[in-house]
Amino acid sequence: MRILIIGAAGMVGRRLAEKLIAEGTLGGKTIDTIHAVDVVEPQLAARTGGPRIEAAAGNVADEATVKTFVAGRPDVIFHLAAIVSGEAEVEFDKGYAINMDGTRYLLEAVRHQGDDYVPRLVFTSSIAVFGAPFPEKIDDTFFTAPLTSYGAQKAIGELLLSDYTRKGFVDGIGIRLPTIVVRPGKPNKAASGFFSGIIREPLAGIEAILPVEDGVRHWVASPAAAVGFLVHAATMDTSVLGDRRTLTMPGLSVTVAEMIEALRKVAGDDVVKLIRRERDPQIVKIVEGWPRDFVAARAEEVGFTADADFESIIRAHIASEDVSKTAN
Amino acid sequence: MRILIIGAAGMVGRRLAEKLIAEGTLGGKTIDTIHAVDVVEPQLAARTGGPRIEAAAGNVADEATVKTFVAGRPDVIFHLAAIVSGEAEVEFDKGYAINMDGTRYLLEAVRHQGDDYVPRLVFTSSIAVFGAPFPEKIDDTFFTAPLTSYGAQKAIGELLLSDYTRKGFVDGIGIRLPTIVVRPGKPNKAASGFFSGIIREPLAGIEAILPVEDGVRHWVASPAAAVGFLVHAATMDTSVLGDRRTLTMPGLSVTVAEMIEALRKVAGDDVVKLIRRERDPQIVKIVEGWPRDFVAARAEEVGFTADADFESIIRAHIASEDVSKTAN
Repeated sequence: MRILIIGAAGMVGRRLAEKLIAEGTLGGKTIDTIHAVDVVEPQLAARTGGPRIEAAAGNVADEATVKTFVAGRPDVIFHLAAIVSGEAEVEFDKGYAINMDGTRYLLEAVRHQGDDYVPRLVFTSSIAVFGAPFPEKIDDTFFTAPLTSYGAQKAIGELLLSDYTRKGFVDGIGIRLPTIVVRPGKPNKAASGFFSGIIREPLAGIEAILPVEDGVRHWVASPAAAVGFLVHAATMDTSVLGDRRTLTMPGLSVTVAEMIEALRKVAGDDVVKLIRRERDPQIVKIVEGWPRDFVAARAEEVGFTADADFESIIRAHIASEDVSKTAN
Repeated sequence: MRILIIGAAGMVGRRLAEKLIAEGTLGGKTIDTIHAVDVVEPQLAARTGGPRIEAAAGNVADEATVKTFVAGRPDVIFHLAAIVSGEAEVEFDKGYAINMDGTRYLLEAVRHQGDDYVPRLVFTSSIAVFGAPFPEKIDDTFFTAPLTSYGAQKAIGELLLSDYTRKGFVDGIGIRLPTIVVRPGKPNKAASGFFSGIIREPLAGIEAILPVEDGVRHWVASPAAAVGFLVHAATMDTSVLGDRRTLTMPGLSVTVAEMIEALRKVAGDDVVKLIRRERDPQIVKIVEGWPRDFVAARAEEVGFTADADFESIIRAHIASEDVSKTAN
C-alpha cells in the first residue's frame, strides 16, 4: 500500500512516519511507499527492506502542489499540515490559506482523481474548536464555538471532511487531538508550551517557569498516544461513524498540581524544585479559555485509548531520547 | 444610511426591501439608499420621498463582483444570497461557490475596505446546520452536524462570520431561520414545500398533497416574522452576543395535524378537505432528518420574537395578497 503523510516534518508527523517505517505494515498490509511531504522536506531514514521513502517539500496552500501529492493515489492519507494557533492568529491570511484552503484543496484533489478513488483520509483537528464558556466536561455533541482563527479553520475542516465523506468522495475521519505533553525539544512560544516545559526542562536539569496556578486543569495526551490515534483512525472500520466523522480523542484531564506530583514521584524533589512559579496574566487569560475536560465517549467506544496516567507519560518521555535533546 | 441587500430578489429579501422602502428608516435612522442585488436584478418600486433604490444583477460567487457590492461602504449589509438545499445537493461545486465562497468573498471585501469600516452584517443561516440524531428540543449549544452540503456551507459561513467579527473586521450576526410557512406563490419542488402547500393551495381552492404523517412536527416562522428577525438583527446591540454570533431564531413547533386544525378554524372544513394524503416515502425519509423543535433561549433573551400561533400565520397569509397570487 501507498501512504501519504502531509505534515511529516512536524513532531507528530515525523513520529508517525518513523513508526510506519519501523513496522513496515499498516492494518496488516505491507507498506510499499511512504510519501512524506511538508513545507520543508522531511528528513526520514529508510530501513533496509522496509517501505520506500519519497520525501518532498511542498505547500498545502498551493492547489497545484496538493494535486501532485494525490496523483500517486495513496491508499491512506494523513493530513497533519497546519500552522499553529498563535501564528494563525497573527497571520490571518496565511492561517486561512494553509489551514482552511489547504484542507479543501486536498479534498478536491481526491475528489477529482475519479475512477472510484476513495482513500482513507485522517485529518488532525484540535480541541481548539471549542471556546469558553463550556461545561466542566465537554461531550460529543457540544458545539464548536472557537475563540481563535486556528480553531475556526479546524472546525471548517471538520465540516468539509464530513460533507465530502457523506457524498462518497473520500473516507474521512477527523481526530481532535488533546494538547501533546511532553513535547520534546526546546521551549517554544506557544501559550500551552509550559505544560510540556514544567516536565521537560526540570528533567534536563534546567529551570522551567510555571505561569499559571497549580489548580489549572488541562486535557493532554503523549506523543505516542497521538501516533496511536492516527494509526487506529487509519485502520478502523469507519462505517460505525455514520455521518459524524470527527471524534474528540480520549486524553487525561490533569491539573498542574497533579502533573508536578507525578514528576516528583518519578524524578524526585530536586527535579521539581526547578519549577519556578511566575504568574503571567496574559497566559492565565488565554488558558482560562481552553477546555479542561471531556467525555470522549464516541472515540472510546470505537477503540481509541488514552495514556494510562501522567506518570506513564513522564516515564515514556524519559525512556525516549527526548530528554537528552532538551539538554543539548 | 446606506443599506445593501444581497439576495433581494428572493422571497424574504424582497419583503425586507419592501418593508425598508415603506418605512424609510432602520433603527431610527433615515435610509438614503438601498442597494438591492441578486443574481437577477431585483424589481423594486421606489416610494416618492423614500430611499433611493439601486438595483443590480451580480453573482456572489464572483469575487470582483462582491467587491463592487461593498465599494459604497454600506452601513448595514443583509446577506441572504444562497442556493437552496436541494440544488446545493445536486450541484456540488455551485453550492460551495455561492454558499461558502460567496460568504467568504463578502467578508474579505468588507475587511479590505479598511479605514475603520466595520458594518453590521446580517447573515441568514438555517436550521439545516443540524442533522439527526438530535434531542427532541435542540438548545443553543448543540453541535452542527449537517446532513446536506447546504447545511455544511451555512455552518461554515457561521464560523467565518464569528471569526471575522472576533477579529474586528465586521459586526456580524447570523440568524438561523426556521422553515418559512406560508411561502407565497406556486408549489416548488423543495422537500419542505408541502408545509406551505397544505395551507396555501386549499385557501386558493386548489388540492394539496400531504406526503407525510399528520404527527410530523416541524419548526416554522411566517415570512413577516423572518423579516422581523432581519430588522432586529440589523438594529440590536450586538455586544451582548460576545463571540457567539449566530442565533437560532424562535419559531413555532407545530405538527401537521395542528397546522390542519388551525386551517380548519380559520377557513372551515371545505378548505381542509382539499388536502389529500398521499404518502411519499422519499419525502418521509428526508423530513425524518430535520429538526422538530428548539429552545431558542438566547435569541428570545435578546429580543427576537416568534409568531404568536399558527392561526395568526394563516390569517396574515390571507390578509396579504399572497392568496390571490397562488390562485392565478
